[in-house]
Amino acid sequence: MRALLEHADEYRSAARGLIERRPSIVRLIGHGSSDAAAAFAVYAFGLLPGWTAVRDSISLVVYYEAQLDFSDSVVIALSQSGETPDVVAYVERARAQGARTIALTNEPESELARLAEISLPLAAGTERSVAATKTYMNMLAALALLAGVCAERERETADGLRSVADVLSATLDPLERAVSEVALAFAYVGRMYVIGRGMEIATAREIALKLKETCRVAAEPLTATDLVHGPVAALDALFPVWVIASRDAGLRAVLEAAERAHAAQATLVASGSAAADVADAAHVLSVPPAPSPVLAPLLSVVPGQLFAASLAHAKGLDADRPIGLSKVTRAR
Amino acid sequence: MRALLEHADEYRSAARGLIERRPSIVRLIGHGSSDAAAAFAVYAFGLLPGWTAVRDSISLVVYYEAQLDFSDSVVIALSQSGETPDVVAYVERARAQGARTIALTNEPESELARLAEISLPLAAGTERSVAATKTYMNMLAALALLAGVCAERERETADGLRSVADVLSATLDPLERAVSEVALAFAYVGRMYVIGRGMEIATAREIALKLKETCRVAAEPLTATDLVHGPVAALDALFPVWVIASRDAGLRAVLEAAERAHAAQATLVASGSAAADVADAAHVLSVPPAPSPVLAPLLSVVPGQLFAASLAHAKGLDADRPIGLSKVTRAR
Repeated sequence: MRALLEHADEYRSAARGLIERRPSIVRLIGHGSSDAAAAFAVYAFGLLPGWTAVRDSISLVVYYEAQLDFSDSVVIALSQSGETPDVVAYVERARAQGARTIALTNEPESELARLAEISLPLAAGTERSVAATKTYMNMLAALALLAGVCAERERETADGLRSVADVLSATLDPLERAVSEVALAFAYVGRMYVIGRGMEIATAREIALKLKETCRVAAEPLTATDLVHGPVAALDALFPVWVIASRDAGLRAVLEAAERAHAAQATLVASGSAAADVADAAHVLSVPPAPSPVLAPLLSVVPGQLFAASLAHAKGLDADRPIGLSKVTRAR
Repeated sequence: MRALLEHADEYRSAARGLIERRPSIVRLIGHGSSDAAAAFAVYAFGLLPGWTAVRDSISLVVYYEAQLDFSDSVVIALSQSGETPDVVAYVERARAQGARTIALTNEPESELARLAEISLPLAAGTERSVAATKTYMNMLAALALLAGVCAERERETADGLRSVADVLSATLDPLERAVSEVALAFAYVGRMYVIGRGMEIATAREIALKLKETCRVAAEPLTATDLVHGPVAALDALFPVWVIASRDAGLRAVLEAAERAHAAQATLVASGSAAADVADAAHVLSVPPAPSPVLAPLLSVVPGQLFAASLAHAKGLDADRPIGLSKVTRAR
């Protein structure tokens, strides 16, 4: 994260181009962890410069070849490897149709980086594990930085990210110890929901993905509100719910949904800066408050990442090399 | 569906207002089944008039109070009951900030219908079951009709919907018999993925929701591509995958993902107009081809709805009144 901040100049210059453009829509695209990061960007751009940002449909453009108006659009393509085929194809088409295109990738020499008008580095160093963790973190940091500069709040955002990096350094070890005690109890769990609300839906998506790919748990991310619009009916005592509770405007909805899950007999794991507020949580994995609300997802994802590593270990799985996955996903 | 078409005048007049407005973005909002319908609308508007439509974040506007530019926006609020609190709150704010607002609801006297500039009826008759089925169908039909009129293709779209209604009449009974033989084999299944691509992600979301709320199966919807970006690692012989295969531009991606799932030992259930193309499917639930590609989701959801009803019955559950749910979800 500190290495990323050394590239602030590049982010500043990209942001200037965006401010001039005054996009009516920022289209984020990516799969897997990159798609979770895209969900974060909806809030980072919505709350910092006040721009409408969306997780766009790749298939609409690439497979159905819809003729959309891209003239007021900025496309931000997210891919750790920069080689995801349909992300690359989307950028090619959107650029040909007049979109301003930015690649956020950890591989500055990748096809995606070459095809986009602007390529910004994640600067996360080589990601050796198949399950992305540090590139996910730096994607969030990069998106926050870009949105912050677009809102003319670069200083504050960069300072916030530096402070997040400091907090992480101090928190990782104690959190890892706390998590390993909790994870063991989940060795035979087959299904989970991970709930969050607002910007923490990004965190819910990322933690659920880590549980699926490294621990083989059928973990589905849901907004707190979606949980009570149906899925709550499936819960029982063998179907735990991971609750991401951050101290922000979405907290009340999350706490109410957690109450409903508990009433349905689900064991609750609470994480986030407001984890201690989750009534009846069997396990509480608190993180320090973020320097600003928009940076909270950078901290609240960490207990989930550590938990997944620990649970995978407890189950005798190799979290770095999940069965059937490879570092670069070339699937359509 | 036929009753809905009797309201074509109202849809025509609403569409005229939209065409004049030339929205830069159509913002869909809704929870549960309404959110699945919103996913369909992304494709209906993208492919028919070529407009950018998105499933918007309710929490960004309602909880975080983001100051977005709504001046070029059309909001389409989806709610069977018309009483979902945060959908109502979103419409109120968006309208105050200059958006054109349309309510699509089955309850023309609801708060949502009153608050939106224009209210369009679903005309599905009283929905007695908690798990929405006919209101979901009519939401898709209503969105297709609206998008069709916006593309100046009203005649073709209305004729297509009439033909879908005819096909449904002829297909429901034989399909129900076929499904009931398959469902029994899933009585002890705890987790599933439901995969689709492109517009069939709406179908995947809706079938997965039905399995969760009426059958208590942890069924997660995934795009075919997302499956191979991680979640495939969780599959085994006790973790079946429902594959929605329609004969359209997304089919190849779906077939390749199904192959990966089969290689991971998952039992495959295939549904849709191209179900027979899914190699190694243990169960095939075909539906007739739709009169046009954009109407396919109206047919491909039906095997899933019938399967959920049948599986719930086999498990001794009441699909009309799932535990812990009520018709109008008042949760935040």
